[in-house]
Amino acid sequence: MFCGIVTGAVPCAKVAEDATTLAFMDIDPGADGHLLVIPKQHSADLIDIPADALAATVLAAQRIARVALSELDADGVNLLQCSGAEAWQTVFHFHLHVIPRYRDRAKDRLELPFEPGHPADAAAIAERARVLAAALETTSLEA
Amino acid sequence: MFCGIVTGAVPCAKVAEDATTLAFMDIDPGADGHLLVIPKQHSADLIDIPADALAATVLAAQRIARVALSELDADGVNLLQCSGAEAWQTVFHFHLHVIPRYRDRAKDRLELPFEPGHPADAAAIAERARVLAAALETTSLEA
Ligand SMILES: [Zn+2]
Ligand SMILES: [Zn+2]
Repeated sequence: MFCGIVTGAVPCAKVAEDATTLAFMDIDPGADGHLLVIPKQHSADLIDIPADALAATVLAAQRIARVALSELDADGVNLLQCSGAEAWQTVFHFHLHVIPRYRDRAKDRLELPFEPGHPADAAAIAERARVLAAALETTSLEA
Repeated sequence: MFCGIVTGAVPCAKVAEDATTLAFMDIDPGADGHLLVIPKQHSADLIDIPADALAATVLAAQRIARVALSELDADGVNLLQCSGAEAWQTVFHFHLHVIPRYRDRAKDRLELPFEPGHPADAAAIAERARVLAAALETTSLEA
């Protein structure tokens, strides 16, 4: 569907465009001014997007977030990227949510209760770090 | 506090490190393997982080996310960046959350109900696009 937005076959409320990225409003916003930035070239998710397309998408998002904060008088901003159905991905063309946030709850219905105050067992956390660090070391030796 | 992690004054469960970025486990994970990637040089948030540091942080997050998906047998992954207290930022050193996601809810307590099905008025969305696009055009003429 987002490939259709890139070609113009699917309409969108366009915010910005450059050679490699396109930004447009989310049609089901979590807060006022919620928009999406996508690479024009198709990638499904964070796993398969090329590094240059990822960097371009994030830098476009930063530029737009700065403008959104000032123009929409927002109090903060979230970037959110969802890869995989279990991570709330519903459209399988890589997209980065730029979500301005507001003290005024009438403009902002986004919720993400991390339910802080449930720190995991320190040993379990250290084990996770060890597994990932070891795998990354292997990766970098292979690279 | 994260500057203290960079210098070593504050302990962390380190996952990876390169010249400009550091990754370590979140001590209050939203899901199994939840970690943070930060630029070593201090920036408070998405607004003030330099482009090169932002790109390096996101590319490190991608590399780590790929490893986390395979090593932790995750079903998906979220990237989340919080800028401003209203956007759930609690530590004011730029950090990017890398959150593996799981079908198994015992490993995953993250919630973010966008409450889909509340599309905003199309005219209101188009107006937001117009305001932002106009401001971005001005920005790019100034750049
Ligand atoms: Zn596509
Ligand atoms: Zn700092």
